[in-house]
Amino acid sequence: MDKSKKIEPRTLPGFMELLPESQIKFNEIKNTIKNVYERYGFLPLDTPIIEDSKILLAKAGGETEKQIYRFNKGENDLCLRFDLTVPLAKYVSQYQNELTFPFRRYQIGKVYRGEKQQRGRFREFYQCDIDIIGDETLSIINDAELPSIIYNVFKELNFGKFTICINNRKILNGLFQSLKLQESATDILRIIDKIDKIGKSEIVNEMKKIEVDEESIDTILKFISIDGTVQEKFMKLQELNIENDLFIEGITELQEVVKYIKMFGVPEEYFCIDLKIARGLDYYTGTVYETFLDEYKNLGSVCSGGRYDNLAEYYTDKKLPGVGISIGLTRLFYQLNEINLINSNKSSISNILIIPMEEKYMEESINVATYLRNNDVSTELYINDKKIKQKMKYADKLKIPYVLIIGEDEVESKLYTLKNMITGEQETLKVEEVVKKLNVKD
Amino acid sequence: MDKSKKIEPRTLPGFMELLPESQIKFNEIKNTIKNVYERYGFLPLDTPIIEDSKILLAKAGGETEKQIYRFNKGENDLCLRFDLTVPLAKYVSQYQNELTFPFRRYQIGKVYRGEKQQRGRFREFYQCDIDIIGDETLSIINDAELPSIIYNVFKELNFGKFTICINNRKILNGLFQSLKLQESATDILRIIDKIDKIGKSEIVNEMKKIEVDEESIDTILKFISIDGTVQEKFMKLQELNIENDLFIEGITELQEVVKYIKMFGVPEEYFCIDLKIARGLDYYTGTVYETFLDEYKNLGSVCSGGRYDNLAEYYTDKKLPGVGISIGLTRLFYQLNEINLINSNKSSISNILIIPMEEKYMEESINVATYLRNNDVSTELYINDKKIKQKMKYADKLKIPYVLIIGEDEVESKLYTLKNMITGEQETLKVEEVVKKLNVKD
Repeated sequence: MDKSKKIEPRTLPGFMELLPESQIKFNEIKNTIKNVYERYGFLPLDTPIIEDSKILLAKAGGETEKQIYRFNKGENDLCLRFDLTVPLAKYVSQYQNELTFPFRRYQIGKVYRGEKQQRGRFREFYQCDIDIIGDETLSIINDAELPSIIYNVFKELNFGKFTICINNRKILNGLFQSLKLQESATDILRIIDKIDKIGKSEIVNEMKKIEVDEESIDTILKFISIDGTVQEKFMKLQELNIENDLFIEGITELQEVVKYIKMFGVPEEYFCIDLKIARGLDYYTGTVYETFLDEYKNLGSVCSGGRYDNLAEYYTDKKLPGVGISIGLTRLFYQLNEINLINSNKSSISNILIIPMEEKYMEESINVATYLRNNDVSTELYINDKKIKQKMKYADKLKIPYVLIIGEDEVESKLYTLKNMITGEQETLKVEEVVKKLNVKD
Repeated sequence: MDKSKKIEPRTLPGFMELLPESQIKFNEIKNTIKNVYERYGFLPLDTPIIEDSKILLAKAGGETEKQIYRFNKGENDLCLRFDLTVPLAKYVSQYQNELTFPFRRYQIGKVYRGEKQQRGRFREFYQCDIDIIGDETLSIINDAELPSIIYNVFKELNFGKFTICINNRKILNGLFQSLKLQESATDILRIIDKIDKIGKSEIVNEMKKIEVDEESIDTILKFISIDGTVQEKFMKLQELNIENDLFIEGITELQEVVKYIKMFGVPEEYFCIDLKIARGLDYYTGTVYETFLDEYKNLGSVCSGGRYDNLAEYYTDKKLPGVGISIGLTRLFYQLNEINLINSNKSSISNILIIPMEEKYMEESINVATYLRNNDVSTELYINDKKIKQKMKYADKLKIPYVLIIGEDEVESKLYTLKNMITGEQETLKVEEVVKKLNVKD
């Protein structure tokens, strides 16, 4: 082929593509999340990435719709899924008679959003979701089980201390209802959210601008300045003397959730109540969650979710209340990698590289490799004809922890010198002993 | 919402979407394949599903191109990947300076082809690929390692006896070269392929129609009627007395591959030489593989691949010879499911369901569930307020193998009655004993 005709290989911007060593670490994190989800008995789901636009966009609108990858193929108007919740809603309505409720599923898969190009923003990214869907009703205790899953996931991922922040949307909604400010709720929440940046007096000004009366401003300020321990917060909430059914229901639910979270084994220092968390106004209806890494709060929430009244009203009359959480894995991995917080032990797939000194020792080398593989040791065999130095360098580059070189002596004695590539330590062992040594997880 | 406005939830035709029980089995197969690939030390890769059309279509043409999902987003001309080989070619050329050669990678992921709608044909399907890419050269021994991977994958998948059929394209190419029939090669291969259907004399007629001379027809017939053991086939090949370098090179390579396949531990009854295998004419250049389930040959090859001279000539001047195999998992799963050959033991994620008799036993139930989970037992807790009968029915429907009911007695004695849902057997155990029992893999 003509050199000038080569096409420059490149990956689209906004699409994460990793080198093997990073991919191994990425997969390990993905796997940890999956294992915890399965340990809690969630069922796996793997819905298509392409769906009929009419179905996927039943609810969407505004910003989301603009970002969607939508196209025609033949006569079909198609979309790439932009989250895992809409496909879940479709799935549960479609198979409602075959599914067993409460339906507990996890799905880990790629979703697509054509976001504006920006560092650390991805157009293709993994979401790792779990949801519990009830048939007409769903006990509030489910809302307390989810934080214990978040706790176990982030404990095992080992990114340092984190805090699961919990709120109940009914408290905020009830507050605005009691102040007759439902219609300004979105604006007020947006203003409140800036308190750390612009300070209290500026917030008061902004609320005045959108015509919130002084008494209401006063209540809102009291509300958002509630602090202390979990119990103190509940006391101060009651002291606001807001007589609104929704508000009181929210507090009761939140108290239940807190009570059960402790039962589920989440230590008190790992969760808190944050009365300002709203997480969008049109979807969640009860408990809401956000999770922050204590040392890296600026990363934003690394795991969020909440309770919704009705998963699939666009597709079915059946009322399907649910509660769920989601981890945006691609972004999280990118961010943690930037700050060197991916402290995975695993940097290679192979545990050992078998090196024949020369090609005439290939048979012995193959036998040893086969024995190790049959005993569940990830083993690579250096097959190509290179100098021994290059073969060693290969193990080094791939960070394979052990090397075993096979030559004349090994063929005769059936004793093999196992070299630890990190410490340089060498040991002479029988093949059964090599298996034993490498199968011990350290 | 108005009832009449509901959108009927449906999945696009040609897209596999499984109920949880089937999904569990599907994932188990996918996992087995992944585990064997990793046991051989292949590195994981996860390239984007969307690529720049210019790059993805560098080589494509004809039928493939028509099937491709291609669309614009903003100013970008994009495609969904239709296989995992072109993305690999892109990846290896793009990162050639960061990768270590031979580069051994696996990728398990979805690919997209807008095929004509047909039962058992999928537009979104998983491919499970491994490839070994050399830098300028790649030893023929690699061609023998791959069949041992196929052997281990299908042995573990336990779909019954199978045969890995091997050939070398140089033998066919050399044969046609020696007969000066290179230009008719495609047609002749197509005709040969029909021998079992239309018989020998009809094949002779068809070859005459495309003006193959009688002497050549005679040689071709001798060639395709070669049978016997592996050694007999090699003898009969030599007896054809074809003096063509490529032909002889092909035989030598095939002999090498056979010699090493045995060393890699593939029993003789699990592989054969099939001199008719060509696998498309423009890509593979040496060894080619097809794999058949002995009892279900009509399913076609369940794992195919081969050796190619140059992976990425469209993107780079670097010569990258390689050898690879691919399993089309979605289709395979569909086919095997149709004939009830998916004999997975696993039909649930949870190993046990904890049932509180009434809500007042929730705390004890949570404690037991937490203890089991902390000891790596997949555990589901029945949270919602239903009658005990319904709770048991839930375990039954989800095929959860064990159930543990918690009431007054259990809270007091800390002894729990573990019920085996399959045998009906009951045992009274301490929680530590429950862990022990459930952690034994049977």
